[in-house]
Amino acid sequence: MIKSTYRFRTRYSEIDQMGFVYYAHYATFFEVARVELFRTIGVSYKQLEEDNILLPVSEYKIKYLLPLLYDEEFEVKTTIKNLPSGSRIHFEYELFNAKNELCTKAETTLFFMDKIKKRPRKCPEEILEIMGNYF
Amino acid sequence: MIKSTYRFRTRYSEIDQMGFVYYAHYATFFEVARVELFRTIGVSYKQLEEDNILLPVSEYKIKYLLPLLYDEEFEVKTTIKNLPSGSRIHFEYELFNAKNELCTKAETTLFFMDKIKKRPRKCPEEILEIMGNYF
Amino acid sequence: MIKSTYRFRTRYSEIDQMGFVYYAHYATFFEVARVELFRTIGVSYKQLEEDNILLPVSEYKIKYLLPLLYDEEFEVKTTIKNLPSGSRIHFEYELFNAKNELCTKAETTLFFMDKIKKRPRKCPEEILEIMGNYF
Amino acid sequence: MIKSTYRFRTRYSEIDQMGFVYYAHYATFFEVARVELFRTIGVSYKQLEEDNILLPVSEYKIKYLLPLLYDEEFEVKTTIKNLPSGSRIHFEYELFNAKNELCTKAETTLFFMDKIKKRPRKCPEEILEIMGNYF
Repeated sequence: MIKSTYRFRTRYSEIDQMGFVYYAHYATFFEVARVELFRTIGVSYKQLEEDNILLPVSEYKIKYLLPLLYDEEFEVKTTIKNLPSGSRIHFEYELFNAKNELCTKAETTLFFMDKIKKRPRKCPEEILEIMGNYF
Repeated sequence: MIKSTYRFRTRYSEIDQMGFVYYAHYATFFEVARVELFRTIGVSYKQLEEDNILLPVSEYKIKYLLPLLYDEEFEVKTTIKNLPSGSRIHFEYELFNAKNELCTKAETTLFFMDKIKKRPRKCPEEILEIMGNYF
Repeated sequence: MIKSTYRFRTRYSEIDQMGFVYYAHYATFFEVARVELFRTIGVSYKQLEEDNILLPVSEYKIKYLLPLLYDEEFEVKTTIKNLPSGSRIHFEYELFNAKNELCTKAETTLFFMDKIKKRPRKCPEEILEIMGNYF
Repeated sequence: MIKSTYRFRTRYSEIDQMGFVYYAHYATFFEVARVELFRTIGVSYKQLEEDNILLPVSEYKIKYLLPLLYDEEFEVKTTIKNLPSGSRIHFEYELFNAKNELCTKAETTLFFMDKIKKRPRKCPEEILEIMGNYF
């Protein structure tokens, strides 16, 4: 299992007129959180793209349990529970506010894609190897 | 069943460096689509909020099947399959590109919330009545 | 002079907790408005990029006179007052709400850029020719 | 003079298909930067809003000198050169990339607004006092 935690603070631009973080913005937090998980284990998503490997999202699910307000600090705990199988990689996210209350739970499935051929491809060997150390 | 269709064109601000609509933005399209469904049957979401009734999202799921590119026209078909039960209302979305290919499928569950008490409340009677005409 | 008008409706995702369109989003409206001006005169910005010509913004100014609220219809009047000189092209924008009140005034300077060389380049001849018909 | 510096990293959601931070997003960075300047001197913008004082932007100017790319670290140096006069307060911003190159220069004018009366009002005395210590 690979786990990492990343801290954020809500921005004014993210708050809607209900006074809550707008429901679309959580996806941007999870994207930052999984890139930071990669950074933690020594994988650069930026480098991956420069090597012509993209990682688009194919599926995303989220449950909103408690709202986040303006200027709140929060953290996203990101987990990879299984090694990538074929082209697919799965992440789970739990978002906690400063009182350590669970605010949202989410999951994404992504797939490795060849940027030139625009087709799914296997997870690169060196990434599998790095990840293998955690399982 | 209540159905409506709303047309969009992708904006430059919505495209990421893969050249695809960034995965978080679909939630904003579905939000517009469900407000337009309401408008079609004579319900104003704006008015609802002015009457101190909010409609936050509690659950959201999406499958990304085909990417949307810059300056593409697309349409979102929105469906309410069941009358709201208690405080909850469920929407389903299918997003088609200009070639009529299904690009994403999504679902949201929302709940009626009392803006003052910050608590779930039943769907207002007049909305139930209007919706009842379609079932 | 080249002029065009494009109509919008504010989206929930664009409203902040003051209940106003968040100040950053106007730039996205102006971007749509200038692409639509181009479309009106038969120029496709999408095609331009496919021909390896980019048009990034080098300068942007805006005055906020009246706020836009949720679900408001508004229009952006876009004007090109002078033919591009060298690599630069200048747009002016006036944004009016449904009561025809001027809400914001803005200007952008953009420049034609060679996508491969990543350097400024002259406005393409065929675009100058098309624009020339309006002056 | 009041000065502060705040560090960011560009997010995937902020990058457009040119591979640059989209021009609208800088406004969101400056908003974070000025809130952090306030925090530095002991003023909470969140608290200000809870006290029914809003601080909307009335004018914004930006020059884009060098693009920011994906996953780049950058910092925004924010300066208040003069005490607020009447209801208005002015901020200047310089954004530097990790090589310490100046990427954008910007300015905003904001005004203190009474949230209830929806009208401009003077800068609160206690904020003037705090700021006075820096001039």
